[in-house]
Amino acid sequence: MTQSVVAVPAPVAPRPTAPAWPGRRHVLDLDDFTPAEITHVLDTAASMKEVLARPIKQVPALRGTTVVTLFYEASTRTRVSFELAAKRLGADVVNVTASASSVVKGESLLDTADTLRALGADILVMRHSAAGAPYLVAQRVACRVINAGDGWHAHPTQALLDLYTVRERLGRIAGLRLAIVGDVLHSRVARSAVWGFTKLGARVTLCGPPTLLPTGPLPWPATEVTHDLERALAGADVVMGLRLQRERQQAALLPSEREYVRLYGLTAERLARLCPDALVLHPGPMNEGVEIMPAVAHGPRSAIADQVTNGVAVRMALLYLLGGEGA
Amino acid sequence: MTQSVVAVPAPVAPRPTAPAWPGRRHVLDLDDFTPAEITHVLDTAASMKEVLARPIKQVPALRGTTVVTLFYEASTRTRVSFELAAKRLGADVVNVTASASSVVKGESLLDTADTLRALGADILVMRHSAAGAPYLVAQRVACRVINAGDGWHAHPTQALLDLYTVRERLGRIAGLRLAIVGDVLHSRVARSAVWGFTKLGARVTLCGPPTLLPTGPLPWPATEVTHDLERALAGADVVMGLRLQRERQQAALLPSEREYVRLYGLTAERLARLCPDALVLHPGPMNEGVEIMPAVAHGPRSAIADQVTNGVAVRMALLYLLGGEGA
Amino acid sequence: MTQSVVAVPAPVAPRPTAPAWPGRRHVLDLDDFTPAEITHVLDTAASMKEVLARPIKQVPALRGTTVVTLFYEASTRTRVSFELAAKRLGADVVNVTASASSVVKGESLLDTADTLRALGADILVMRHSAAGAPYLVAQRVACRVINAGDGWHAHPTQALLDLYTVRERLGRIAGLRLAIVGDVLHSRVARSAVWGFTKLGARVTLCGPPTLLPTGPLPWPATEVTHDLERALAGADVVMGLRLQRERQQAALLPSEREYVRLYGLTAERLARLCPDALVLHPGPMNEGVEIMPAVAHGPRSAIADQVTNGVAVRMALLYLLGGEGA
Repeated sequence: MTQSVVAVPAPVAPRPTAPAWPGRRHVLDLDDFTPAEITHVLDTAASMKEVLARPIKQVPALRGTTVVTLFYEASTRTRVSFELAAKRLGADVVNVTASASSVVKGESLLDTADTLRALGADILVMRHSAAGAPYLVAQRVACRVINAGDGWHAHPTQALLDLYTVRERLGRIAGLRLAIVGDVLHSRVARSAVWGFTKLGARVTLCGPPTLLPTGPLPWPATEVTHDLERALAGADVVMGLRLQRERQQAALLPSEREYVRLYGLTAERLARLCPDALVLHPGPMNEGVEIMPAVAHGPRSAIADQVTNGVAVRMALLYLLGGEGA
Repeated sequence: MTQSVVAVPAPVAPRPTAPAWPGRRHVLDLDDFTPAEITHVLDTAASMKEVLARPIKQVPALRGTTVVTLFYEASTRTRVSFELAAKRLGADVVNVTASASSVVKGESLLDTADTLRALGADILVMRHSAAGAPYLVAQRVACRVINAGDGWHAHPTQALLDLYTVRERLGRIAGLRLAIVGDVLHSRVARSAVWGFTKLGARVTLCGPPTLLPTGPLPWPATEVTHDLERALAGADVVMGLRLQRERQQAALLPSEREYVRLYGLTAERLARLCPDALVLHPGPMNEGVEIMPAVAHGPRSAIADQVTNGVAVRMALLYLLGGEGA
Repeated sequence: MTQSVVAVPAPVAPRPTAPAWPGRRHVLDLDDFTPAEITHVLDTAASMKEVLARPIKQVPALRGTTVVTLFYEASTRTRVSFELAAKRLGADVVNVTASASSVVKGESLLDTADTLRALGADILVMRHSAAGAPYLVAQRVACRVINAGDGWHAHPTQALLDLYTVRERLGRIAGLRLAIVGDVLHSRVARSAVWGFTKLGARVTLCGPPTLLPTGPLPWPATEVTHDLERALAGADVVMGLRLQRERQQAALLPSEREYVRLYGLTAERLARLCPDALVLHPGPMNEGVEIMPAVAHGPRSAIADQVTNGVAVRMALLYLLGGEGA
């Protein structure tokens, strides 16, 4: 033990620095995004999609940056999408899930987030069953935060990948008509999508059984509500189906699944009346045969697989733009 | 937000390309392997084992390739073996387990596999409690699939590591006599091993209580069945013990564990009658004191630790040969 | 299949070799550390903390080394701390948790550890609810072992990060007075901290309700026990609060949580009587409002966030010093 302090080896090669994203440190929902900001994210995602088309789908843009996924709800697609996005940018990724963590010991959300920050997390990607949880963390913890879904409130990265997919397939967002069909009331996907699509100039119709639609004045521009599916689909360029949660029926918000399918299921017959190049979206996981029929889910109008692939590009763009310096 | 689309940094250095494996896109079981193919895997695994002997046990052969492990059953050794094999080849690895995933939401196997493919999975390593599950995925999802165990049906990578271990220790497979002892009826390990060993010219004897042996005509060549352990061990060059599942007794397939140990336990006395360089294998985890005694499990004939180490080399070989381009 | 054995690509660049740590292969507790060894770890951790201050917090010192975290108890901070420490050194990290592993099948601890070694683990970081479990593994498995907490027995890496934090903030350990307050009897954190602080020349007072204090002769030098908090705090330079486990009350070791808070809670009023630069430590997760008040936990004396950050540096130092060659 007489040797002196060890010489720590030289660092690895420096990474290219990401450009700053002026004024933005978190992605909590799209309601505070300007149209220009949204467009900038989509343009950056297009560059990232080029990376994903290369034989080696990696760029070292976030080498040395630590991304922590903190998921208090089960998820495959969203967690894996962020994990792969971060890895393709060369970041270190650590996954923390509620069931296998100190959450068992009753550690509070803020304490957990503080700890992850102190451990070195630069960007915290979090999903929580409580609406607003990521806002609390963003206010109180010196860490960049991306909301990967909070309760029924918001899921902004899903909305961005929806926008990306539609723009890629139809060439624009402005002037389009989007119909969102299903349990809009309990859908964070729908809420964030309405913000994103209306900000870029689309018009939105929310459609579902009256018990599953928002009531009272809506916070969004250019948005209407109907329980008449025929009316919602008339002239729609994009139809987004939402997952029907079985719990809704138990809560007496639905007469029966069969009735729901009859009135609101996205069938090939119904979609045949859309304009020829209209798209079908779904955030997944799907209940095929319930809110969407297999022929629609896997048919020529479906952009559902594209959504999944584009999600990685969009999340790469967000991680890249938020950059590595967390504080 | 006036800046133009960001210039994405240059990609990392290209990886050496893996040679194509003509005609093979999946490893589902060994029944459709030719002897030459099996030998080729074992030869490649020998090269990989050289890599594992280096101070830095890594080659960048699969850099930019994404390997997803999708496990619907608990596993330490097989999952970690694939994870390390993929990492040693420079691949990105993502782990998905049933308990912490959208499986909770009832997402179907095919939907999950489709999603993982769309997220960028090149090779899907899967374990499922239903026999045939990996075949379904291989038929329907544009992804390379490796079966890491499906129900009672097959576990081909275990069979390949068994073959590798025996060839390494005894120098050959052809002409050897293999005895597989225990609950053969419910063993995917046994089923795949019989295919592998008989294809390379070994003869196999399956031994266990009559209630735990297959009945009717056997699908394999050069294979016989007996409930007489003395007869099975006579002249055997390799003895493979199988794990006794406690559930079997509850299902009234076994009189008692004690009776089982007395009749079929692999004891030092029984194995003393084997030829001097005969090997003992076990797929693990072992019930020491039940199907195998500690003196045998850790004795000079045991190749059980070798099996674990060789499993990494064999899985590196398979990942390397299947290569990175999944579609 | 006529091609010859594949040429495996060249290895990645060699890593700088870590200096040997003469005579030490495991970190099980601090009772067998010399003061010089502890100081050497702290000095090395200081070098590692410089790495953590760089834009790219990585050095390739353990490239090709495999670190496995094997946790039989839930943990966020300790597991993530080790995972990040290993990744920042370029090691491959594999996480194994009890709930998602073969532990379900009843595989024994030693069998699991043997398997992980055979799979290629160089360093095994383990947490187990049974005191002594890491000693058993260290004796029987040819792998370097770091104890990340075993039952009520020891948590040496926590003690080292406590020492590091105090030395960094107060400039020395020798001559300081440390008060450890709370459920000392069931605390592995306290036990290891007493070894570490007394070996470096500090004096320790253990304080808590009589039912939660050790009885009989103490194994440590320069350590006293009291149930009088005022006396424990008088002249203390460092106060370490311990987490109060709710289970203790159910076991009738505590009259009530309210009573505990009244007698032993670390309040701002009580700590105001300490010397001006005295520090407050807590291993986390905290029960704010029970053993420690929020004003103290987040106040100017608190070094609790520093502890978390320093934990990564200390664990990097330990992994680095133990080095990669496990056998």
